[in-house]
Amino acid sequence: MRQFTVLLPVCARKRGLHDFTSEVRDWVERQGIRTGLLTIFCRHTSASLLIQENAAPEVRADLEAFFEHIAPEDPERYAHDDEGPDDMPAHLRTALTQVQLCIPVMDGRPVLGTWQGIYLFEHRRRPHEREIALHLIGE
Amino acid sequence: MRQFTVLLPVCARKRGLHDFTSEVRDWVERQGIRTGLLTIFCRHTSASLLIQENAAPEVRADLEAFFEHIAPEDPERYAHDDEGPDDMPAHLRTALTQVQLCIPVMDGRPVLGTWQGIYLFEHRRRPHEREIALHLIGE
Amino acid sequence: MRQFTVLLPVCARKRGLHDFTSEVRDWVERQGIRTGLLTIFCRHTSASLLIQENAAPEVRADLEAFFEHIAPEDPERYAHDDEGPDDMPAHLRTALTQVQLCIPVMDGRPVLGTWQGIYLFEHRRRPHEREIALHLIGE
Repeated sequence: MRQFTVLLPVCARKRGLHDFTSEVRDWVERQGIRTGLLTIFCRHTSASLLIQENAAPEVRADLEAFFEHIAPEDPERYAHDDEGPDDMPAHLRTALTQVQLCIPVMDGRPVLGTWQGIYLFEHRRRPHEREIALHLIGE
Repeated sequence: MRQFTVLLPVCARKRGLHDFTSEVRDWVERQGIRTGLLTIFCRHTSASLLIQENAAPEVRADLEAFFEHIAPEDPERYAHDDEGPDDMPAHLRTALTQVQLCIPVMDGRPVLGTWQGIYLFEHRRRPHEREIALHLIGE
Repeated sequence: MRQFTVLLPVCARKRGLHDFTSEVRDWVERQGIRTGLLTIFCRHTSASLLIQENAAPEVRADLEAFFEHIAPEDPERYAHDDEGPDDMPAHLRTALTQVQLCIPVMDGRPVLGTWQGIYLFEHRRRPHEREIALHLIGE
Protein backbone atom coordinates (compact mmCIF):
# COMPACT_ATOMS: atom_id res chain seq x y z
CA MET A 1 0.00 0.00 0.00
CA ARG A 2 1.37 3.43 -0.94
CA GLN A 3 0.41 7.06 -0.25
CA PHE A 4 0.84 10.31 -2.15
CA THR A 5 0.08 13.92 -1.20
CA VAL A 6 0.28 17.30 -2.87
CA LEU A 7 -0.85 20.87 -2.23
CA LEU A 8 -2.57 21.99 -5.43
CA PRO A 9 -3.17 25.71 -6.08
CA VAL A 10 -6.52 26.44 -7.75
CA CYS A 11 -7.26 29.92 -9.08
CA ALA A 12 -10.73 31.42 -8.85
CA ARG A 13 -11.09 34.58 -10.88
CA LYS A 14 -14.53 35.33 -9.45
CA ARG A 15 -17.34 34.02 -7.26
CA GLY A 16 -18.85 30.73 -8.44
CA LEU A 17 -17.91 27.22 -9.57
CA HIS A 18 -14.49 26.48 -11.05
CA ASP A 19 -13.95 23.05 -12.62
CA PHE A 20 -10.62 21.42 -11.68
CA THR A 21 -11.54 17.81 -12.49
CA SER A 22 -8.77 17.40 -15.06
CA GLU A 23 -6.03 18.60 -12.68
CA VAL A 24 -7.19 16.07 -10.08
CA ARG A 25 -7.57 13.22 -12.58
CA ASP A 26 -4.15 13.93 -14.11
CA TRP A 27 -2.45 13.89 -10.70
CA VAL A 28 -4.13 10.61 -9.75
CA GLU A 29 -3.11 8.98 -13.02
CA ARG A 30 0.51 10.06 -12.58
CA GLN A 31 0.78 8.20 -9.23
CA GLY A 32 0.13 4.82 -10.88
CA ILE A 33 -2.44 3.64 -8.32
CA ARG A 34 -5.03 1.17 -9.69
CA THR A 35 -7.28 0.85 -6.62
CA GLY A 36 -7.46 3.28 -3.75
CA LEU A 37 -9.05 6.28 -2.11
CA LEU A 38 -8.60 9.91 -3.14
CA THR A 39 -9.28 12.74 -0.66
CA ILE A 40 -9.61 16.39 -1.72
CA PHE A 41 -9.47 18.99 1.06
CA CYS A 42 -10.02 22.76 0.79
CA ARG A 43 -7.92 24.70 3.33
CA HIS A 44 -10.24 27.71 3.49
CA THR A 45 -13.42 28.90 5.22
CA SER A 46 -14.81 31.05 2.41
CA ALA A 47 -14.43 28.59 -0.47
CA SER A 48 -15.63 25.01 -0.63
CA LEU A 49 -15.83 21.90 -2.82
CA LEU A 50 -18.72 20.51 -4.79
CA ILE A 51 -19.29 17.65 -7.18
CA GLN A 52 -21.82 18.87 -9.72
CA GLU A 53 -23.18 18.55 -13.22
CA ASN A 54 -20.41 19.16 -15.75
CA ALA A 55 -22.42 19.58 -18.96
CA ALA A 56 -25.01 22.40 -18.84
CA PRO A 57 -23.51 25.79 -17.86
CA GLU A 58 -26.99 26.96 -16.72
CA VAL A 59 -26.68 24.60 -13.75
CA ARG A 60 -23.72 26.56 -12.43
CA ALA A 61 -25.51 29.91 -12.88
CA ASP A 62 -28.65 28.55 -11.15
CA LEU A 63 -26.55 27.19 -8.28
CA GLU A 64 -24.83 30.52 -7.81
CA ALA A 65 -28.22 32.32 -7.82
CA PHE A 66 -29.66 29.83 -5.32
CA PHE A 67 -26.85 30.39 -2.81
CA GLU A 68 -27.10 34.17 -3.25
CA HIS A 69 -30.78 33.81 -2.43
CA ILE A 70 -30.48 31.72 0.74
CA ALA A 71 -27.32 33.39 2.08
CA PRO A 72 -27.61 36.94 0.73
CA GLU A 73 -25.19 39.81 1.17
CA ASP A 74 -27.07 41.96 3.66
CA PRO A 75 -25.20 43.90 6.37
CA GLU A 76 -28.39 43.98 8.46
CA ARG A 77 -28.34 40.22 8.94
CA TYR A 78 -24.83 39.54 10.18
CA ALA A 79 -22.67 40.69 13.08
CA HIS A 80 -19.52 39.52 11.25
CA ASP A 81 -18.28 41.63 8.34
CA ASP A 82 -14.53 41.96 8.99
CA GLU A 83 -13.74 41.60 5.30
CA GLY A 84 -16.86 43.16 3.77
CA PRO A 85 -20.45 42.20 2.94
CA ASP A 86 -19.45 38.97 1.15
CA ASP A 87 -17.53 37.69 4.21
CA MET A 88 -20.28 36.10 6.31
CA PRO A 89 -22.29 34.78 3.33
CA ALA A 90 -19.06 33.03 2.28
CA HIS A 91 -18.87 31.19 5.62
CA LEU A 92 -22.55 30.18 5.37
CA ARG A 93 -22.15 28.87 1.82
CA THR A 94 -19.10 26.89 2.95
CA ALA A 95 -21.11 25.38 5.85
CA LEU A 96 -23.90 24.33 3.48
CA THR A 97 -21.55 22.61 1.04
CA GLN A 98 -18.32 20.67 1.76
CA VAL A 99 -14.63 21.31 2.41
CA GLN A 100 -13.63 17.73 1.66
CA LEU A 101 -14.48 15.02 -0.83
CA CYS A 102 -13.43 11.36 -0.82
CA ILE A 103 -13.66 9.47 -4.09
CA PRO A 104 -12.79 5.79 -4.54
CA VAL A 105 -10.25 5.04 -7.29
CA MET A 106 -10.93 2.02 -9.50
CA ASP A 107 -9.00 1.01 -12.63
CA GLY A 108 -6.64 3.91 -12.04
CA ARG A 109 -9.30 6.65 -12.09
CA PRO A 110 -11.61 8.38 -9.59
CA VAL A 111 -15.03 6.67 -10.00
CA LEU A 112 -16.86 9.88 -10.92
CA GLY A 113 -20.11 9.37 -12.81
CA THR A 114 -20.40 10.52 -16.42
CA TRP A 115 -21.94 13.87 -15.48
CA GLN A 116 -19.90 14.58 -12.34
CA GLY A 117 -17.24 17.28 -12.27
CA ILE A 118 -15.13 18.42 -9.30
CA TYR A 119 -15.55 22.12 -8.54
CA LEU A 120 -13.95 24.70 -6.33
CA PHE A 121 -16.87 26.84 -5.14
CA GLU A 122 -15.43 30.31 -4.58
CA HIS A 123 -17.62 32.42 -2.30
CA ARG A 124 -15.73 35.72 -2.25
CA ARG A 125 -16.17 38.34 -4.97
CA ARG A 126 -12.49 39.10 -5.48
CA PRO A 127 -10.10 36.66 -7.25
CA HIS A 128 -8.36 34.20 -4.94
CA GLU A 129 -5.76 31.48 -5.30
CA ARG A 130 -6.97 28.64 -3.09
CA GLU A 131 -4.89 25.78 -1.72
CA ILE A 132 -6.32 22.28 -2.11
CA ALA A 133 -4.68 19.30 -0.40
CA LEU A 134 -4.83 15.96 -2.22
CA HIS A 135 -4.18 12.61 -0.56
CA LEU A 136 -4.17 9.26 -2.32
CA ILE A 137 -3.78 5.85 -0.72
CA GLY A 138 -3.88 2.55 -2.57
CA GLU A 139 -1.91 0.18 -4.70
CA MET B 1 -3.61 -3.83 4.85
CA ARG B 2 -6.21 -4.86 2.27
CA GLN B 3 -8.74 -3.07 0.03
CA PHE B 4 -12.10 -4.03 -1.44
CA THR B 5 -14.37 -2.23 -3.91
CA VAL B 6 -17.77 -2.85 -5.45
CA LEU B 7 -20.34 -0.96 -7.53
CA LEU B 8 -23.65 -1.43 -5.74
CA PRO B 9 -26.94 -0.76 -7.56
CA VAL B 10 -29.57 0.92 -5.36
CA CYS B 11 -33.16 1.25 -6.61
CA ALA B 12 -35.25 4.32 -5.81
CA ARG B 13 -38.88 3.87 -6.74
CA LYS B 14 -39.69 7.52 -6.04
CA ARG B 15 -38.32 10.81 -4.71
CA GLY B 16 -37.15 10.68 -1.10
CA LEU B 17 -34.99 8.66 1.29
CA HIS B 18 -34.23 5.00 0.65
CA ASP B 19 -32.51 3.03 3.41
CA PHE B 20 -29.68 0.77 2.22
CA THR B 21 -27.85 0.36 5.53
CA SER B 22 -28.21 -3.42 5.58
CA GLU B 23 -26.75 -3.85 2.07
CA VAL B 24 -23.72 -1.78 3.10
CA ARG B 25 -23.30 -3.52 6.45
CA ASP B 26 -23.60 -6.99 4.86
CA TRP B 27 -20.97 -6.18 2.24
CA VAL B 28 -18.55 -4.85 4.89
CA GLU B 29 -19.03 -7.94 7.05
CA ARG B 30 -18.36 -10.26 4.11
CA GLN B 31 -14.90 -8.72 3.54
CA GLY B 32 -13.65 -9.80 6.97
CA ILE B 33 -12.07 -6.46 7.90
CA ARG B 34 -11.96 -5.74 11.66
CA THR B 35 -10.61 -2.18 11.59
CA GLY B 36 -10.69 0.15 8.63
CA LEU B 37 -12.39 2.90 6.69
CA LEU B 38 -15.51 2.54 4.53
CA THR B 39 -16.27 5.06 1.77
CA ILE B 40 -19.66 5.29 0.04
CA PHE B 41 -19.81 7.35 -3.16
CA CYS B 42 -22.88 8.24 -5.25
CA ARG B 43 -22.05 8.54 -8.97
CA HIS B 44 -24.91 10.94 -9.78
CA THR B 45 -25.75 14.65 -9.70
CA SER B 46 -29.47 14.35 -8.95
CA ALA B 47 -29.32 11.85 -6.09
CA SER B 48 -27.21 12.06 -2.94
CA LEU B 49 -26.35 10.33 0.34
CA LEU B 50 -27.49 11.10 3.85
CA ILE B 51 -27.05 9.57 7.27
CA GLN B 52 -30.32 10.14 9.12
CA GLU B 53 -32.66 8.97 11.82
CA ASN B 54 -33.72 5.38 11.16
CA ALA B 55 -36.63 5.01 13.60
CA ALA B 56 -39.44 7.54 13.07
CA PRO B 57 -40.80 7.57 9.48
CA GLU B 58 -42.11 11.15 10.04
CA VAL B 59 -38.50 12.35 9.97
CA ARG B 60 -38.16 11.23 6.37
CA ALA B 61 -41.43 12.92 5.36
CA ASP B 62 -40.42 16.14 7.12
CA LEU B 63 -37.00 16.08 5.45
CA GLU B 64 -38.57 15.63 2.03
CA ALA B 65 -41.00 18.52 2.71
CA PHE B 66 -38.15 20.74 3.92
CA PHE B 67 -36.11 20.24 0.74
CA GLU B 68 -39.19 20.80 -1.43
CA HIS B 69 -39.63 24.07 0.43
CA ILE B 70 -36.10 25.45 0.09
CA ALA B 71 -35.46 24.13 -3.46
CA PRO B 72 -38.94 24.12 -4.99
CA GLU B 73 -39.97 23.04 -8.46
CA ASP B 74 -40.64 26.38 -10.10
CA PRO B 75 -39.78 26.94 -13.78
CA GLU B 76 -39.64 30.69 -13.13
CA ARG B 77 -36.61 30.31 -10.89
CA TYR B 78 -34.20 28.28 -12.97
CA ALA B 79 -32.56 28.63 -16.39
CA HIS B 80 -31.78 24.88 -16.43
CA ASP B 81 -34.67 22.48 -17.09
CA ASP B 82 -33.29 20.06 -19.69
CA GLU B 83 -35.00 17.11 -18.04
CA GLY B 84 -38.09 18.82 -16.60
CA PRO B 85 -39.07 20.89 -13.57
CA ASP B 86 -37.48 18.46 -11.06
CA ASP B 87 -34.07 18.67 -12.79
CA MET B 88 -32.55 21.82 -11.26
CA PRO B 89 -34.07 21.28 -7.78
CA ALA B 90 -32.37 17.86 -7.87
CA HIS B 91 -28.95 19.46 -8.41
CA LEU B 92 -29.58 21.96 -5.59
CA ARG B 93 -30.66 19.23 -3.16
CA THR B 94 -27.54 17.26 -4.08
CA ALA B 95 -25.35 20.32 -3.41
CA LEU B 96 -26.95 20.83 0.02
CA THR B 97 -26.42 17.22 1.09
CA GLN B 98 -23.51 14.85 0.25
CA VAL B 99 -22.37 12.56 -2.54
CA GLN B 100 -19.90 10.69 -0.32
CA LEU B 101 -19.73 9.35 3.21
CA CYS B 102 -16.73 7.92 5.06
CA ILE B 103 -17.41 5.75 8.08
CA PRO B 104 -14.74 4.17 10.30
CA VAL B 105 -15.03 0.40 10.76
CA MET B 106 -14.42 -0.96 14.27
CA ASP B 107 -14.95 -4.54 15.44
CA GLY B 108 -15.92 -5.50 11.90
CA ARG B 109 -18.80 -3.02 11.55
CA PRO B 110 -19.30 0.59 10.43
CA VAL B 111 -19.44 2.66 13.66
CA LEU B 112 -22.91 4.05 13.00
CA GLY B 113 -24.75 5.28 16.08
CA THR B 114 -27.88 3.48 17.26
CA TRP B 115 -30.23 5.81 15.40
CA GLN B 116 -28.17 6.32 12.24
CA GLY B 117 -29.21 4.79 8.92
CA ILE B 118 -27.54 5.21 5.52
CA TYR B 119 -29.91 6.60 2.90
CA LEU B 120 -29.90 7.19 -0.81
CA PHE B 121 -31.68 10.52 -1.23
CA GLU B 122 -33.38 10.37 -4.63
CA HIS B 123 -34.24 13.82 -5.96
CA ARG B 124 -35.98 12.95 -9.22
CA ARG B 125 -39.68 12.06 -9.38
CA ARG B 126 -39.33 9.04 -11.67
CA PRO B 127 -37.85 5.71 -10.47
CA HIS B 128 -34.09 5.37 -10.95
CA GLU B 129 -31.48 2.71 -10.37
CA ARG B 130 -28.49 4.51 -8.92
CA GLU B 131 -24.90 3.29 -8.85
CA ILE B 132 -23.08 3.54 -5.53
CA ALA B 133 -19.34 2.83 -5.28
CA LEU B 134 -18.09 1.25 -2.05
CA HIS B 135 -14.44 1.20 -1.00
CA LEU B 136 -13.09 -0.47 2.12
CA ILE B 137 -9.51 -0.36 3.38
CA GLY B 138 -8.28 -1.97 6.57
CA GLU B 139 -7.19 -5.23 8.13
CA MET C 1 0.93 1.27 6.98
CA ARG C 2 -0.74 1.50 10.38
CA GLN C 3 -4.22 2.37 11.71
CA PHE C 4 -5.51 3.88 14.93
CA THR C 5 -9.05 4.40 16.21
CA VAL C 6 -10.68 5.96 19.26
CA LEU C 7 -14.14 6.97 20.47
CA LEU C 8 -13.79 10.55 21.70
CA PRO C 9 -16.48 12.06 23.98
CA VAL C 10 -17.21 15.72 23.21
CA CYS C 11 -19.38 17.75 25.58
CA ALA C 12 -21.80 20.37 24.29
CA ARG C 13 -23.23 22.52 27.06
CA LYS C 14 -25.73 24.19 24.70
CA ARG C 15 -26.84 24.52 21.09
CA GLY C 16 -24.17 25.83 18.74
CA LEU C 17 -20.55 25.32 17.70
CA HIS C 18 -18.02 23.70 20.05
CA ASP C 19 -14.36 23.76 19.05
CA PHE C 20 -12.54 20.45 19.59
CA THR C 21 -9.63 21.03 17.21
CA SER C 22 -6.99 20.69 19.91
CA GLU C 23 -8.31 17.31 21.13
CA VAL C 24 -8.20 15.99 17.56
CA ARG C 25 -4.76 17.44 16.83
CA ASP C 26 -3.32 16.11 20.09
CA TRP C 27 -4.63 12.60 19.41
CA VAL C 28 -3.19 12.62 15.88
CA GLU C 29 0.20 13.79 17.13
CA ARG C 30 0.32 11.05 19.77
CA GLN C 31 -0.01 8.31 17.11
CA GLY C 32 3.27 9.29 15.45
CA ILE C 33 1.93 9.23 11.88
CA ARG C 34 3.74 11.59 9.47
CA THR C 35 1.55 11.12 6.38
CA GLY C 36 -1.96 9.76 6.33
CA LEU C 37 -5.69 10.32 6.40
CA LEU C 38 -7.77 11.32 9.43
CA THR C 39 -11.52 10.62 9.55
CA ILE C 40 -13.84 12.20 12.12
CA PHE C 41 -17.32 10.67 12.43
CA CYS C 42 -20.26 11.90 14.56
CA ARG C 43 -22.45 9.01 15.77
CA HIS C 44 -25.61 11.12 16.14
CA THR C 45 -28.52 12.46 14.09
CA SER C 46 -29.07 15.72 15.98
CA ALA C 47 -25.48 16.94 16.14
CA SER C 48 -23.03 17.31 13.26
CA LEU C 49 -19.50 18.37 12.30
CA LEU C 50 -18.30 21.55 10.66
CA ILE C 51 -14.97 23.07 9.75
CA GLN C 52 -15.35 26.81 10.24
CA GLU C 53 -13.63 30.09 10.96
CA ASN C 54 -11.77 29.87 14.28
CA ALA C 55 -10.99 33.54 14.93
CA ALA C 56 -14.07 35.80 15.05
CA PRO C 57 -16.73 34.65 17.56
CA GLU C 58 -19.40 36.59 15.60
CA VAL C 59 -19.11 33.99 12.85
CA ARG C 60 -20.38 31.31 15.20
CA ALA C 61 -23.29 33.48 16.38
CA ASP C 62 -24.22 34.35 12.78
CA LEU C 63 -24.06 30.68 11.79
CA GLU C 64 -26.33 29.69 14.65
CA ALA C 65 -28.81 32.46 13.71
CA PHE C 66 -28.75 31.40 10.05
CA PHE C 67 -29.64 27.79 10.85
CA GLU C 68 -32.38 28.91 13.24
CA HIS C 69 -33.77 30.97 10.38
CA ILE C 70 -33.82 28.27 7.69
CA ALA C 71 -34.80 25.38 9.98
CA PRO C 72 -36.86 27.08 12.67
CA GLU C 73 -38.51 25.55 15.69
CA ASP C 74 -42.15 25.61 14.64
CA PRO C 75 -44.52 22.78 15.63
CA GLU C 76 -46.79 23.70 12.71
CA ARG C 77 -44.15 22.70 10.17
CA TYR C 78 -43.17 19.22 11.26
CA ALA C 79 -44.94 15.91 11.84
CA HIS C 80 -41.99 14.65 13.93
CA ASP C 81 -41.59 16.07 17.45
CA ASP C 82 -40.96 12.98 19.62
CA GLU C 83 -38.38 14.82 21.71
CA GLY C 84 -39.77 18.36 21.57
CA PRO C 85 -39.74 21.34 19.19
CA ASP C 86 -35.96 21.26 18.69
CA ASP C 87 -36.05 17.61 17.53
CA MET C 88 -36.89 17.92 13.82
CA PRO C 89 -34.89 21.15 13.29
CA ALA C 90 -31.92 19.21 14.69
CA HIS C 91 -32.28 16.53 12.00
CA LEU C 92 -32.57 19.18 9.26
CA ARG C 93 -29.49 21.04 10.48
CA THR C 94 -27.59 17.74 10.53
CA ALA C 95 -28.70 16.99 6.94
CA LEU C 96 -27.51 20.42 5.76
CA THR C 97 -24.06 20.06 7.34
CA GLN C 98 -21.91 16.90 7.76
CA VAL C 99 -21.55 13.92 10.05
CA GLN C 100 -18.05 13.08 8.83
CA LEU C 101 -14.87 14.91 7.88
CA CYS C 102 -11.74 13.50 6.25
CA ILE C 103 -8.55 15.53 6.57
CA PRO C 104 -5.20 14.57 5.05
CA VAL C 105 -2.28 14.44 7.49
CA MET C 106 1.03 15.90 6.32
CA ASP C 107 4.17 16.44 8.42
CA GLY C 108 2.39 14.81 11.36
CA ARG C 109 -0.55 17.22 11.47
CA PRO C 110 -4.02 17.54 9.89
CA VAL C 111 -3.60 20.00 6.97
CA LEU C 112 -6.14 22.49 8.29
CA GLY C 113 -5.79 26.02 6.95
CA THR C 114 -4.78 28.84 9.28
CA TRP C 115 -8.38 29.89 9.95
CA GLN C 116 -9.98 26.44 10.06
CA GLY C 117 -11.22 24.92 13.31
CA ILE C 118 -13.03 21.60 13.80
CA TYR C 119 -16.42 22.05 15.48
CA LEU C 120 -19.10 19.84 16.93
CA PHE C 121 -22.33 21.52 15.88
CA GLU C 122 -24.85 20.71 18.62
CA HIS C 123 -28.45 21.14 17.46
CA ARG C 124 -30.37 20.30 20.64
CA ARG C 125 -31.03 22.88 23.34
CA ARG C 126 -30.12 20.69 26.30
CA PRO C 127 -26.51 19.74 27.13
CA HIS C 128 -25.30 16.50 25.51
CA GLU C 129 -22.18 14.40 25.56
CA ARG C 130 -21.62 13.30 21.98
CA GLU C 131 -19.49 10.39 20.79
CA ILE C 132 -17.08 11.09 17.96
CA ALA C 133 -15.19 8.25 16.26
CA LEU C 134 -11.67 9.01 15.00
CA HIS C 135 -9.81 6.85 12.50
CA LEU C 136 -6.25 7.45 11.31
CA ILE C 137 -4.40 5.51 8.64
CA GLY C 138 -0.89 6.25 7.46
CA GLU C 139 2.78 5.84 8.25
